[in-house]
Amino acid sequence: MTEITRQHCKDLDAQDPLAAMRDAFHLPEGVIYLDGNSLGAQPKGARAAFDRTIDVEWREDLITSWGKAEWFTLPERLGDRLGRLFGAAPGQVVVCDTTSLNIYKALRAAMGLRPERRVIVSEKASFPTDLYMIEGATMGSDYETRLVEPEGDIADLIDADVAAVLLSNVDYRTGRLLDMERITRLAHEAGALVIWDLCHSAGVLPMEMDAMGADFAVGCTYKYLNGGPGSPAFIYVAERHQAEARQPLSGWWGHAAPFAFEAEFRPVEGIRRFLCGTQPILSMKGVEAALDVFEGIDMQTVRAKSVALCDLFIRLVARHPGCADLRLITPEAAEERGSQVSFAFDEGYAVVRAMIERGVIGDFRAPNVMRFGLAPYYLRYEDMFDAVEIMAECIAARPWEDSRFAQMAAVT
Amino acid sequence: MTEITRQHCKDLDAQDPLAAMRDAFHLPEGVIYLDGNSLGAQPKGARAAFDRTIDVEWREDLITSWGKAEWFTLPERLGDRLGRLFGAAPGQVVVCDTTSLNIYKALRAAMGLRPERRVIVSEKASFPTDLYMIEGATMGSDYETRLVEPEGDIADLIDADVAAVLLSNVDYRTGRLLDMERITRLAHEAGALVIWDLCHSAGVLPMEMDAMGADFAVGCTYKYLNGGPGSPAFIYVAERHQAEARQPLSGWWGHAAPFAFEAEFRPVEGIRRFLCGTQPILSMKGVEAALDVFEGIDMQTVRAKSVALCDLFIRLVARHPGCADLRLITPEAAEERGSQVSFAFDEGYAVVRAMIERGVIGDFRAPNVMRFGLAPYYLRYEDMFDAVEIMAECIAARPWEDSRFAQMAAVT
Repeated sequence: MTEITRQHCKDLDAQDPLAAMRDAFHLPEGVIYLDGNSLGAQPKGARAAFDRTIDVEWREDLITSWGKAEWFTLPERLGDRLGRLFGAAPGQVVVCDTTSLNIYKALRAAMGLRPERRVIVSEKASFPTDLYMIEGATMGSDYETRLVEPEGDIADLIDADVAAVLLSNVDYRTGRLLDMERITRLAHEAGALVIWDLCHSAGVLPMEMDAMGADFAVGCTYKYLNGGPGSPAFIYVAERHQAEARQPLSGWWGHAAPFAFEAEFRPVEGIRRFLCGTQPILSMKGVEAALDVFEGIDMQTVRAKSVALCDLFIRLVARHPGCADLRLITPEAAEERGSQVSFAFDEGYAVVRAMIERGVIGDFRAPNVMRFGLAPYYLRYEDMFDAVEIMAECIAARPWEDSRFAQMAAVT
Repeated sequence: MTEITRQHCKDLDAQDPLAAMRDAFHLPEGVIYLDGNSLGAQPKGARAAFDRTIDVEWREDLITSWGKAEWFTLPERLGDRLGRLFGAAPGQVVVCDTTSLNIYKALRAAMGLRPERRVIVSEKASFPTDLYMIEGATMGSDYETRLVEPEGDIADLIDADVAAVLLSNVDYRTGRLLDMERITRLAHEAGALVIWDLCHSAGVLPMEMDAMGADFAVGCTYKYLNGGPGSPAFIYVAERHQAEARQPLSGWWGHAAPFAFEAEFRPVEGIRRFLCGTQPILSMKGVEAALDVFEGIDMQTVRAKSVALCDLFIRLVARHPGCADLRLITPEAAEERGSQVSFAFDEGYAVVRAMIERGVIGDFRAPNVMRFGLAPYYLRYEDMFDAVEIMAECIAARPWEDSRFAQMAAVT
């Protein structure tokens, strides 16, 4: 077992093909930010985008900016650019609303496309909002929801009664990556549709949605996509479903002629029928600035660094005597995980809080998960080394005996 | 008929108790902005609020701002402040999502509160998204929608089969103001619930939602409330309905313990159960800055000036020979209108475009409505005088014979 030195990490940084990308982000002094899977760092270009929108588009041009600054077409313009990052051809993605709302739209559309089926499949360990939206979408009806257990195989739950399968490809707690192609194929063989929640993968994992024959996908833009706090989410609907797909959040933005002010809803052709109301333009501009950073970036290069960072982090923790009590719950095999590394540790909450005080920002998920999201755009190999050293020092200090960390509060 | 002179208007401005409020807004040089009912002007304080959120909260403090900058509680903190403007006690309003989405929540909640009833009442001339959301909310069910004709009385449509009545108190085209108390009382006498769409009244009309026993209300914050382009909407739910009210957009933000990550949805007590997903923080900050402008402002004073501006505008147009072909479609009686003045004119589109070129920004609504929203915070009596003079000059120039204005485009 060769030792991993700080110098070795610095050498890796010196050879990093994505090193320049780090310069495109603001990173606070003295902080190692391992929470890019909660809220991404700020692209330096965001400031100018916001300034223009605040000082010119809104302040000076006022209402005329809907046309002049092309606010009207932001949802699909951003959607097309975003789609490239996960293998979606133009015309299939809009940026709008929240992930939860887009799950609702996708669920209801999928249910409508499979009207004779009455089962929704998901997983018990799903990020809860996905399950809550299934409850909402099936409220007052006779749908059954089947949830796979953490160790179960989703294949066992998919049969000819299933209308839709809703899954996160990357688990928000463990970072486990599902075999999207296999599940999509299985679902399609059973005549079901799949809705992929890409919250923890969009922008960091290469995906080929079109090529795998995906049906629907949703996700947020404020994690690995760095669009800013609460920036609008996205929804992908495969072109082949668009003509038949209907969803009940049928606001005027999804109408064929929103300014004809017709009394009856007539959905527009194409992906815009998944829009509902007026989007928060300023927050949309954060997404635009974030997508600028991805221009010309190959997602395979991003993935390679993500894998290398996670590998390094896992190895550093495994070799550090001070971290012996942590249990890795992220799959060790790179092809089975996203861009995060999680450990189970009963005193994890206090350790995460103590690390934050030392400038290493990770987060905690109940009941005992220490979670580190590794954004390959702005993290260095050197950061992995320092973070693990500080983590070990924090554990050694037994922060769970410190009354300041006794009461658990949300770390988001 | 005494002449109204420009000097007379300037004298009115000199006595205006709201004159100082104008200084709280950025207004472009050379522009008379009569489109505050589409997108309000920018409060000067917005810049500092945005700067703090961009440069400190997001850039420096990153994920910790959810707690440290109190992003978590923005929906209800802004809601409480907003509620004061329309007579809602704290704990009944949240700022979130879009008007269309909030209509959906309110409709589904009202339908759930009146489960044995199968009729929704609205009006044919409603802003279309309201009707589209009724279609969505009743999609696939056996609900009937009854729409009152423009000249009809809503009372004729309300009976014991009606679950909910959805109405805009101020008509977006004509500016006509409904008698909210009468309709609320009639609906309640029939056992129905009322959902008020306040898009064209919130922030400009004094209302007493609690006192009139209102049930639900929704509205946007980017018109007379000046929150910025696409800033999030609001929803009001009377406290007495909250415990029983359920709505299917049941995302994690409406959960009793969002960070306990429970698999089943358990709605939080109170108004937060009308939240769904993560809100666009930057756009929320625009609402916060806008509400600062309203601090200490009496809505009766706002209304008095709004009425006076509209009266003046109507009189100026009526007396101007150059405007003789315009037909006023806004009620002349102040108590029957909101804060806008609209005229029917077949060549209205070209005239509005020509006026915009001269710096007088109004808007146009198909098929023939020239619409002027008069925001009393930043408009002067003098502006009314100048706007009408310019309108008359534009009409005299017959812009509809100009090919530049031949093709109608959305003015929003």
